[in-house]
Amino acid sequence: MLTVYSEDCRAHHGRAELNEGQLVPCFENPSRTDMVLERLRAVDLGEIIAPRDFGEAPIRAVHDDGFVDFLKTCWADWTAAGRDWDAIPFTFGKRGMRNDRVPTDIDGRISYYGMDAGTPITAGTWTAATAAANCALTATEQVAGGLRGAFAACRPPGHHAAADYYGGYCFLNNAAIAAQAARANGAQRVSLLDIDYHHGNGTQTIFYDRADVQFLSLHADPTVEYPYFLGHADETGTGEGEGFNHNFPLPWGTDWTAYEAALSEALRRIRGYRPDVLVVSLGLDTFEQDPISKFKLASDRYPVVGEMLGKLKIPTVFVLEGGYAVEALGVNAVGVLQGFEGA
Amino acid sequence: MLTVYSEDCRAHHGRAELNEGQLVPCFENPSRTDMVLERLRAVDLGEIIAPRDFGEAPIRAVHDDGFVDFLKTCWADWTAAGRDWDAIPFTFGKRGMRNDRVPTDIDGRISYYGMDAGTPITAGTWTAATAAANCALTATEQVAGGLRGAFAACRPPGHHAAADYYGGYCFLNNAAIAAQAARANGAQRVSLLDIDYHHGNGTQTIFYDRADVQFLSLHADPTVEYPYFLGHADETGTGEGEGFNHNFPLPWGTDWTAYEAALSEALRRIRGYRPDVLVVSLGLDTFEQDPISKFKLASDRYPVVGEMLGKLKIPTVFVLEGGYAVEALGVNAVGVLQGFEGA
Repeated sequence: MLTVYSEDCRAHHGRAELNEGQLVPCFENPSRTDMVLERLRAVDLGEIIAPRDFGEAPIRAVHDDGFVDFLKTCWADWTAAGRDWDAIPFTFGKRGMRNDRVPTDIDGRISYYGMDAGTPITAGTWTAATAAANCALTATEQVAGGLRGAFAACRPPGHHAAADYYGGYCFLNNAAIAAQAARANGAQRVSLLDIDYHHGNGTQTIFYDRADVQFLSLHADPTVEYPYFLGHADETGTGEGEGFNHNFPLPWGTDWTAYEAALSEALRRIRGYRPDVLVVSLGLDTFEQDPISKFKLASDRYPVVGEMLGKLKIPTVFVLEGGYAVEALGVNAVGVLQGFEGA
Repeated sequence: MLTVYSEDCRAHHGRAELNEGQLVPCFENPSRTDMVLERLRAVDLGEIIAPRDFGEAPIRAVHDDGFVDFLKTCWADWTAAGRDWDAIPFTFGKRGMRNDRVPTDIDGRISYYGMDAGTPITAGTWTAATAAANCALTATEQVAGGLRGAFAACRPPGHHAAADYYGGYCFLNNAAIAAQAARANGAQRVSLLDIDYHHGNGTQTIFYDRADVQFLSLHADPTVEYPYFLGHADETGTGEGEGFNHNFPLPWGTDWTAYEAALSEALRRIRGYRPDVLVVSLGLDTFEQDPISKFKLASDRYPVVGEMLGKLKIPTVFVLEGGYAVEALGVNAVGVLQGFEGA
C-alpha cells in the first residue's frame, strides 16, 4: 500500500500536557510516526512518498477562517507576549457563556479556540498540522486516481478538531479534510469510519448536518472517557444529516468479541450507504497495552480489522489518528493495512 | 466595623495553577487573608468574630445540587483514583458539545463542573469554601440584625462560581449566597456591586433572570481579560431580570479618573433601585501593583471608594473577592472599610 509521510510532521513536539492534574511529557510526539515508518519499511509494505502542498483552500473548506488564522499566528502572538514555552489555554468558555465574541488578547483567543489543556501549541505546530493535512489530501488524491487504498502516516492527529476549535492533540481535522476533498474530487457519498479509542467529536460536528458524508465512530463511552461531552448513541445527525451519524459507545474493558460485533454493525451500515470512498480515522489506542486507554484488543486483531475493512471493496483512505503504546503502534497500524491488502 | 473570619478558610491551599502555559504557585492562597487580618488588627477596625454554621441549605439555595455534591466528594473521588496531588481538570466541554449528561468518571465530572485549569481542588477545599460561605452568611445576618456594615474576610473567593460550575479561584459564590440570604431575611431588593478587577460572571448568571437582585460589575473588558466570555455592556439581564444587570467593562490601564466616573454611574443606578441591602464583592486587584491585573488605582483611592459606598447609606455586606498584591492587600481592603465607616 502507498504511504504518504512528511518529515514536517515531526515539527510539532510539545514539551508537556496537563494530565491528571500534572504536566507530563506529551503522549502524542514524533516517535509515534517514527515507529510506524520503521514498521512500514521493515515489512516493505509499499512506496512511501512525500505529500504535495494543496495550500489552504481544502483546509478552509472544513475549518473556520478565524480558527485557521489563529492557528497560523498563535505561536507568534504567544511569544510576542514574552513567552518562549508551549502555548496552553488555562480557561474555557463554560455553558451559558458567550460564543459570539472572539477575544483579542492572545490568552483569550487561545481560550476561545482551545478545548483542553492537553494540547500545547509550539513553534512547529502549524507546519506539522498542515503537513499532516497534506498527507491526508495526497492519499485521497491517490485513491481518487485509482489506488484501492492509501495511508496517510501523519501527525498531529485530527479527529478531535472541530471547524473552530482544537484539542485532544488535534489541530486540523485531517480525516474531515480528506473526506471533503473526496467529495470535491467527485465522490457522491463518503463514509468516514473512526476506530480511534476516543470519540471523533470534531469530525462528527463538521458533518453533523450533512447527508453526503456518513460518520461512524466506535469508541469508549463518553460517560467515562474523553472527550466526555459528545459520542453518545442518540447523536444521530440533524437536518439533512439526520440518520447519517452513527456512534457506537463501548464500555471500558471492551474485548474483541464485543468490538467485532460493533464493527460488523458499522460495516453493515456503510454497505447500506454505498459510499464511493471510505476514509478511516485509524487510531490504534484500542490496543490492550495503550497507556491512556482501556480497551482490550490484542495485536493479532488489527489484521482482522483490516481484513474486515478490505472486504467492503471500497476505495479507502487511511488517516493515522491516536495510539500511544509507541513500540507496538507500528505493528498494529501496519497490521490493519496488511489485513486490508490481503482481503 | 465587624469582621467575620474563620481559620478554616486557610484549609484550601492549592500547590499550583496553570498560568501562561505553566504550573506556577497559586496566586490565591492563605497569606491573602492573613494580610487582611493583620491590617484589621493593626488599625483596630473592630471586633473579629468567627462565623456560625448555616448548614448547606443557603448554599443549595444558590448552587445546583449535583454541583454541591461534586464539590463535597471531588477530593475523595480524585484520591480514590490513585492521586495524592491537586485535582485540576484538563478538558472542558466546548461550544456545540452536550451539557445534558454529567459524566460519571471523576475526570469527566471535574471537566463538567470546572471552567479552568487555574483552580485546584485540594483536601481542604470543601472545608474552606463552606467556611467562606458561612463568613458571608454571618456578616449578612449581622447586617440584617441592625449593623450598618459588616465584612466577611473570607477565602476562597466566590464571584466566578456559577450555580453549577467553579473556576477563577472560586468554588461557592459567597456574595451570591449572601444576597440570597438577605432576601430570605426580609430584604425586598438587594444590590450586588462587584468591584473586583475581573467580571463576576458567576454572580451575573445566578441572578440574570431576576429583578429582586440588581447586579452591577466594574471590571476589565472581557475582550482582553479573564473570564473573557461574559461581562460585556450589552448583557443587561433576561426575562424578569431585563434591565437589572449592569456591566461596566473598562480598558487595561484604567486610572482613577475613568474608574471613579464608572463607579459613580453604578452608584447612581443603585440609588435608583432603592435596595434594602447592598452586597459588595470586594476585590482589590484593581490596585496598580497587582501582579495579574492591569488597572492603575493607587492605595489612597480605596478609602475614597469606601466613602462613596458609605454615602449611599444602605446596610452593606462586604465580601472579600480577589486581590493578589499580598503586602498591600490588607491596606487596600481595610482602606475601603475605613472610608465606608467615615462617610
